[in-house]
Amino acid sequence: MKIAISVGDINGIGLEILLKSHKKISKICQPIYCVDEKLLKQAAKILGLKDPKDLCCVSPCSFMPCIEPACITKESGEYSYASFLKALELVKEHKVQAITTLPIHKKAWQLANVPYAGHTQALRDIFKQEVIMVLGCKKLYMALFSDHIPLREVFEKITFESLLKFLLQLAPFIHKPPCGVLGLNPHAGDFGVLGDEEEVIREAIKRANIVMGEERFIGPLVPDTAFVGKHWRYYVAMYHDQGLIPLKMLYFKNSINLTLNLPFIRTSVDHGTAFDIAYGNKADTKSYRNAIKEIIRHNLKTKGGDRI
Amino acid sequence: MKIAISVGDINGIGLEILLKSHKKISKICQPIYCVDEKLLKQAAKILGLKDPKDLCCVSPCSFMPCIEPACITKESGEYSYASFLKALELVKEHKVQAITTLPIHKKAWQLANVPYAGHTQALRDIFKQEVIMVLGCKKLYMALFSDHIPLREVFEKITFESLLKFLLQLAPFIHKPPCGVLGLNPHAGDFGVLGDEEEVIREAIKRANIVMGEERFIGPLVPDTAFVGKHWRYYVAMYHDQGLIPLKMLYFKNSINLTLNLPFIRTSVDHGTAFDIAYGNKADTKSYRNAIKEIIRHNLKTKGGDRI
Repeated sequence: MKIAISVGDINGIGLEILLKSHKKISKICQPIYCVDEKLLKQAAKILGLKDPKDLCCVSPCSFMPCIEPACITKESGEYSYASFLKALELVKEHKVQAITTLPIHKKAWQLANVPYAGHTQALRDIFKQEVIMVLGCKKLYMALFSDHIPLREVFEKITFESLLKFLLQLAPFIHKPPCGVLGLNPHAGDFGVLGDEEEVIREAIKRANIVMGEERFIGPLVPDTAFVGKHWRYYVAMYHDQGLIPLKMLYFKNSINLTLNLPFIRTSVDHGTAFDIAYGNKADTKSYRNAIKEIIRHNLKTKGGDRI
Repeated sequence: MKIAISVGDINGIGLEILLKSHKKISKICQPIYCVDEKLLKQAAKILGLKDPKDLCCVSPCSFMPCIEPACITKESGEYSYASFLKALELVKEHKVQAITTLPIHKKAWQLANVPYAGHTQALRDIFKQEVIMVLGCKKLYMALFSDHIPLREVFEKITFESLLKFLLQLAPFIHKPPCGVLGLNPHAGDFGVLGDEEEVIREAIKRANIVMGEERFIGPLVPDTAFVGKHWRYYVAMYHDQGLIPLKMLYFKNSINLTLNLPFIRTSVDHGTAFDIAYGNKADTKSYRNAIKEIIRHNLKTKGGDRI
């Protein structure tokens, strides 16, 4: 299986992770790296690693910036965006079956005038699809009803129609129901005393279960006790931190990012550029390797007609 | 030391906890229960416990409802409010030095036309003080900048002035700095790309540290990684679930609720009425006993001029 890898911000930990994982991941798939080979050599030199060989690289654009560890630059933003677009081009042309993205720096994208806050927003726009962002690992998958937006913009998104659509799009991927849907307010609104968005959430869950013909979703759950002790395998979080605080506390190193509702599979690591340890030979490669493995798993199951 | 105990909702787990803990807590303080003795006897009978003896009870009002396990009633709301007011009366008259409150049911308070969503809001109004709600235990104290309000009302509260005031009021209680202050938005705003409230938070932290003459506060921290691995002893959360999801995941059974900035000490259990197990002999008494112990600890330290 061929997988395109977009390299993310070249001033962060992405290239280190790529170089250190190549041997292992090339045993389970054929990675196509959307990066200039020279840049990989530059990275290997800074990191004191052997010169990379036998890597299948595709140059993403006509220019090649220099690596400036832990610096937020317009050039690195332009390059990481180009690398991402190249990966999308390869998958559109069926030269690869899936893509895995390494972390970009959002501020660098902003400096480079990229019109998106991040990968997921770009995918939404480019493919005109309401893509779903799921983070997690085999033990816990967290689907984010809203993701990389300011917290104050979450409220207008919570409507019966949009939530129902989201739940129905997510439903086929829930292999072992139930999927817990979190409330929005403290104590899930406490019977309306602390907010009333839970009414809409409750109605959408009810309707989604009727459509699916089973109790696939439960909730709205009280957010602050939903992860005490045991937990379900699937959850829907209303906003980013509601889902990612518990997920990262429980499965930080194992988590990956999976984008659903696209014509192909896209996974990503569940961490950022980690400028604080960039080019320090300290990056953990586990999330990246898991992101590749998730594609393989997903691909096998889809072929077998199975869900996540 | 005399401590007034308000009994909370009589249809929840409060009276079970009270009865089962009396022997232990009366060894470390003199509890004054704001409840009719007859009601305690009724609760003991339902629970199959011995008739309670030697308990110092003060009737909170002129009527006494019947216990209806797990029912939300106007009468239970009126009674739990009366019990709370009686505890406040005792502390105002210096008949006790502190109070501990058992959990009320917010909907029952609403049915009883109590003009407050909960204890903390009532204390704020009655004592005309911007009281601070801190939840936690010796290992982790979580101060809530906003607490029992709908999530959509959090934003208007975040101003430089109000946050600075909050930090300065909290500062004397931070025994071992630093205290981590969480950001509001995903990735703490990601350099303004995902929200800009972090600018105000950053400025308030800076000013508070200048006033205190030391780095007592740090932040704004990225919320979803703040509790991965090790954590500090003190945090400020911008909203309820941001603080209580991690706290309850880590220290659910040990946590208590401490109200700062009042002329007396008030603690409370860190759980609700738990109607699902009401009068089922399953309630955990640990949080209640910790709430009493926190008062003793706090009292000793204040006398010694020390902080939490």
